[in-house]
Amino acid sequence: MPLPTPAESLRLACRTNTHTTSTSLLTPTIQANLLVLPSRHAASFRALCARNPVSCPLLWTTPPGAPTTPLAPTADLRTDLPKYNIYLDGILQTPEGVLDIKNEWSPDHVGFLIGCSFSFETALERAGLPPRHTLCTPPRTVPMFRTTVPLCPAGVFTGGVMVVSMRSYPPGRVEEVRDITRRFGRQHGEPVAWGWEGAETLGVAEKMREGRVDFGEWVEVGEGEVPVFWGCGVTPQVAVMESGIGGVVLSHFPGCMFVSDVLAEDEAELESVVKALDVVEEVGSGGAD
Amino acid sequence: MPLPTPAESLRLACRTNTHTTSTSLLTPTIQANLLVLPSRHAASFRALCARNPVSCPLLWTTPPGAPTTPLAPTADLRTDLPKYNIYLDGILQTPEGVLDIKNEWSPDHVGFLIGCSFSFETALERAGLPPRHTLCTPPRTVPMFRTTVPLCPAGVFTGGVMVVSMRSYPPGRVEEVRDITRRFGRQHGEPVAWGWEGAETLGVAEKMREGRVDFGEWVEVGEGEVPVFWGCGVTPQVAVMESGIGGVVLSHFPGCMFVSDVLAEDEAELESVVKALDVVEEVGSGGAD
Repeated sequence: MPLPTPAESLRLACRTNTHTTSTSLLTPTIQANLLVLPSRHAASFRALCARNPVSCPLLWTTPPGAPTTPLAPTADLRTDLPKYNIYLDGILQTPEGVLDIKNEWSPDHVGFLIGCSFSFETALERAGLPPRHTLCTPPRTVPMFRTTVPLCPAGVFTGGVMVVSMRSYPPGRVEEVRDITRRFGRQHGEPVAWGWEGAETLGVAEKMREGRVDFGEWVEVGEGEVPVFWGCGVTPQVAVMESGIGGVVLSHFPGCMFVSDVLAEDEAELESVVKALDVVEEVGSGGAD
Repeated sequence: MPLPTPAESLRLACRTNTHTTSTSLLTPTIQANLLVLPSRHAASFRALCARNPVSCPLLWTTPPGAPTTPLAPTADLRTDLPKYNIYLDGILQTPEGVLDIKNEWSPDHVGFLIGCSFSFETALERAGLPPRHTLCTPPRTVPMFRTTVPLCPAGVFTGGVMVVSMRSYPPGRVEEVRDITRRFGRQHGEPVAWGWEGAETLGVAEKMREGRVDFGEWVEVGEGEVPVFWGCGVTPQVAVMESGIGGVVLSHFPGCMFVSDVLAEDEAELESVVKALDVVEEVGSGGAD
């Protein structure tokens, strides 16, 4: 029997509740946001992702009640993340998180995996461009901001705005940063804006000047650097929570992501899995609610 | 030999310069925006469309120098539109348009077909919701506005904003209008905003109050109606023209669209063609410039 990979080991540790904290930097594989919705809202949510692919890059949709994914064939999405959040009628029920969602993931619930910025952070680090929040002691969570940029609405999901993450770089290296992150197309890809002018365009300049984040932790813009902004996987979560949909919604606990088996740099394998999703979608496609 | 279809007849009339004006309402098939760029910018433009699919729904990319598409196998994209525009270094060279672009479409030029709102206008009409600009005597071009909503940049295409078209409806019928247009996913799909609050969100409320359009012709919001806004195919044209890229860029002349053979209501056939494009893309994929 082959030895388990780091990703398999980590998921097993989550399943047995021996790992219950952040997954940051723990595997060389793609990590993902998890959202679990009542099936009546699945078509709207898929449309939301399709219409806003930069902030909401959909990697996988499960059939109702089937908590698995080809991104990690041995994984059970109900137990293999460190911690989860449970929402009822849009209100968080579990401020400390829970260790599994076996009882909450009903036969009517559909799971969605959404790309996150982990993969490109590793690539930036390797290129000698480590994000400043990873260099803090202790490391901080990346600063995130609600922008004034509206999402393209889809079905029941109206009124959302793009959430962005911020990392600062010298102006002379912004093109290099764009080039590196561009190839992570399902993990937010290249930045959505940069420089203080970009901060104005996104409507976050004042919050930036005051060091006031909406999510994550504040990290100063480095001396001689400018802010660079990327689409952020918190976007679809906020859109869902603020949409007023009723019922039980489940998600990962912040920082406690789903860890896949697909190598972070392997966009080709990721694309082949997402294409398989497209085929499933065709078979099961229906109108948005 | 079977009789030519209305679309084939119209394209032949364009090729022989006997039809040189708008294609509005002349065929029951999907019509499309045409943009032709130097091949060095093709990867950036494909990425721009992928990252902004609501305003820039890409239907087809040609190989360099090959002005054909499976959306209309007998068509020559250099001759079969009524009129064209020619730009040099971002400056329009042909304010009156030209009848073909046989000499300008070089072996290095790549053509892009982008969805337009024609198909859903027919569907709205059939549902008893004809857009007001089609009811004017004579019919007007739909009012269009530059919004303050930034596009997600891609490669050389930075700094663009979403352009929207506007049609007004009674507030009580907006959900019906959303439902009807939602299924035209490659032709801008459901609205991006509605109501006067939506106009504020898009940054177009003041222009709306002053009856000041950026493209097309002003049409009053009907008594007891509210404005409804859709993504618009003028978006990628404006993004390209304002990007500062050099060289020869070609496009359709406003209102003089490419007429395909695919029935407007046949999103399934359209999807199968676009999927074929994805396969071509994989074979020919490269980094953005």
